[in-house]
Amino acid sequence: MATPIDDFYAVIPAGGIGSRLWPLSRADAPKFLHDLTGSGQTLLRDTWDRLAPLAGIERIAVVTGRAHRAAVEQQLPGILDANVILESEPRDSTAAIGLAAAILVRREPDVVIGSFAADHVIRGARVFDFAVRQAVEVARAGYICTIGIQPTEASTGFGYIKRADELIVEGAPEAALVERFVEKPDLETARTYFADRSYSWNAGMFISRADVLLAEIAANEPELHAGLVELAAAWDDRDLRGPAVDRIWPELKKIAIDYTVAEPAAAKGRLAVVPGHFDWDDVGDFASLTKLISNGRKNDLAILGENARILSDASSGIVVSQTSRVISLIGVQDIVVVDTPDALLVTTTEHAQRVKQVVDALKLTGRGDVL
Amino acid sequence: MATPIDDFYAVIPAGGIGSRLWPLSRADAPKFLHDLTGSGQTLLRDTWDRLAPLAGIERIAVVTGRAHRAAVEQQLPGILDANVILESEPRDSTAAIGLAAAILVRREPDVVIGSFAADHVIRGARVFDFAVRQAVEVARAGYICTIGIQPTEASTGFGYIKRADELIVEGAPEAALVERFVEKPDLETARTYFADRSYSWNAGMFISRADVLLAEIAANEPELHAGLVELAAAWDDRDLRGPAVDRIWPELKKIAIDYTVAEPAAAKGRLAVVPGHFDWDDVGDFASLTKLISNGRKNDLAILGENARILSDASSGIVVSQTSRVISLIGVQDIVVVDTPDALLVTTTEHAQRVKQVVDALKLTGRGDVL
Repeated sequence: MATPIDDFYAVIPAGGIGSRLWPLSRADAPKFLHDLTGSGQTLLRDTWDRLAPLAGIERIAVVTGRAHRAAVEQQLPGILDANVILESEPRDSTAAIGLAAAILVRREPDVVIGSFAADHVIRGARVFDFAVRQAVEVARAGYICTIGIQPTEASTGFGYIKRADELIVEGAPEAALVERFVEKPDLETARTYFADRSYSWNAGMFISRADVLLAEIAANEPELHAGLVELAAAWDDRDLRGPAVDRIWPELKKIAIDYTVAEPAAAKGRLAVVPGHFDWDDVGDFASLTKLISNGRKNDLAILGENARILSDASSGIVVSQTSRVISLIGVQDIVVVDTPDALLVTTTEHAQRVKQVVDALKLTGRGDVL
Repeated sequence: MATPIDDFYAVIPAGGIGSRLWPLSRADAPKFLHDLTGSGQTLLRDTWDRLAPLAGIERIAVVTGRAHRAAVEQQLPGILDANVILESEPRDSTAAIGLAAAILVRREPDVVIGSFAADHVIRGARVFDFAVRQAVEVARAGYICTIGIQPTEASTGFGYIKRADELIVEGAPEAALVERFVEKPDLETARTYFADRSYSWNAGMFISRADVLLAEIAANEPELHAGLVELAAAWDDRDLRGPAVDRIWPELKKIAIDYTVAEPAAAKGRLAVVPGHFDWDDVGDFASLTKLISNGRKNDLAILGENARILSDASSGIVVSQTSRVISLIGVQDIVVVDTPDALLVTTTEHAQRVKQVVDALKLTGRGDVL
């Protein structure tokens, strides 16, 4: 096993539910607590295992909701108490990652942190390792560094990062500055990005010195920054933490770190990128999950569920089985069937993005019991 | 209420499971025990209610499996013990209807019997009544009479009856002889039948004197006939019935009454038809059930299930809900979703006929627990 990186701390924000994977993902069983790859363990645990050789298991922090504390600790038996950062309610990624940064910088002023989503799928541990080690070198040089995934198709499901000039940093031979961040494009635009090799996918991975990250937040959202600093000052005191959380956390602005850190840093020439040559997927919806499980084989039915009892006749798509029921499919193409004890979803991969609308509609119509 | 017809006895064979409606229809919950029309009562009870004004409730016999005795008696509280004819195992329609005929003719030598499936849907009680009364007049004249349904489309799902010359029988102004019976045709042939008004659908309704029916069975299947007569002779004796059933019933030839009675009688000019101007459907599969429930409205989702909790977004087809689960459909067209506690079916109306193959496959693969 490789040596952990000095001064490096990994931060895993484990907050999102993954609404587009409803009814598989739920408030009480969010996406990061599922095994979506058939690896035999949850995505959170996969993420932990990927980061342990880079940071060491005593230097991985998880930011998650109070409701998930027990599940997280059960999944990650080696995690230190001090590394479980509990949110009383979700306040988006600036608050989650910013709080971790503010806490860690008090403990270690020169710490470099890297934040990695708890619910993404990555294949290729060695190249992941190499990318993170390069990114840390770039971060030590004072930049905020992201890892850009080499696109394998003209996806409209991800944001893009446009690379600018190369950046000369020792130990980071592939580093470059970032010209700009682009939101999810339409198909035509995605095709031009895919053809132009200077675009990569934004996987939401940010590596930087904690103080540099906090300075960027301070420059763009001073109130939010002040709240985070105040909260961090109380954090490591048992008596002060609770009241501080109750007072400060609910007032923090909900805003994604892309807007408070990545985009403004890019505009100032302070955002860098190193390429990630590994397979990456955010498994954002059932179309993406189907592709992941079927491993590119078309016309096959992808099946998720250890005890699935499925009878399929010339059908394609995906079946997620969480019950003991016999599921029979006849002649349905690109179908998505998600069978859980209290909710059933039937759609097609084409409509996979619309699952979130169903979740919203269930909330509005008083059927939140199945969310 | 109209006066019951003298000497008339209605016979309801209630034997089929309705495999093409699996997993709604099951061995222990066959089609005739379901409310498929939203009438609030089972198809069996609908059938009974339709026949009661014609025969009187003391003159309706039901031929069914031993396993369904309790359900049948619960559905038909007025039924006489002597009118529940139990099969120890299914032996097809000649045995079922022939046994009823053989039993009834011993009790009343001049009885006219009419057999009507327990699991068809009929709308238009007055015209049904009129058709049966005509058919009984034809039967009294010594013919075997069927009721031909006026086709409303070029269906390939039903057999056809070709009408020949009109038949002069008092009280049966629309009677005609039958030239021949035709099995389910292909679409092109169905179109020519539909255009040619001398074809009607075979709804499996046969009205005749019991002795005439038995004579036809005797002429074509003498062994089967001998078995039925022997069994009927023992039937009304408590001590003899059981042993006779055990000895004779399992040996009876399994053959549909179309082959033993209708087709040979047609060939001899002894089969007549009166038209049925009522809406009729055998609800043979989920495509047919969808049409029935949506009442011809396209692009609507048909729903069967009193407590269905459905969230549908631009989907069409049918959902059958037998659980309390929330069922969410997104953008699926002509879909068939049948949600039961132990089995789930997902297909499309186009593939509805293939459901029977699933049932066969489940048997072969040792999953008969859900049949």
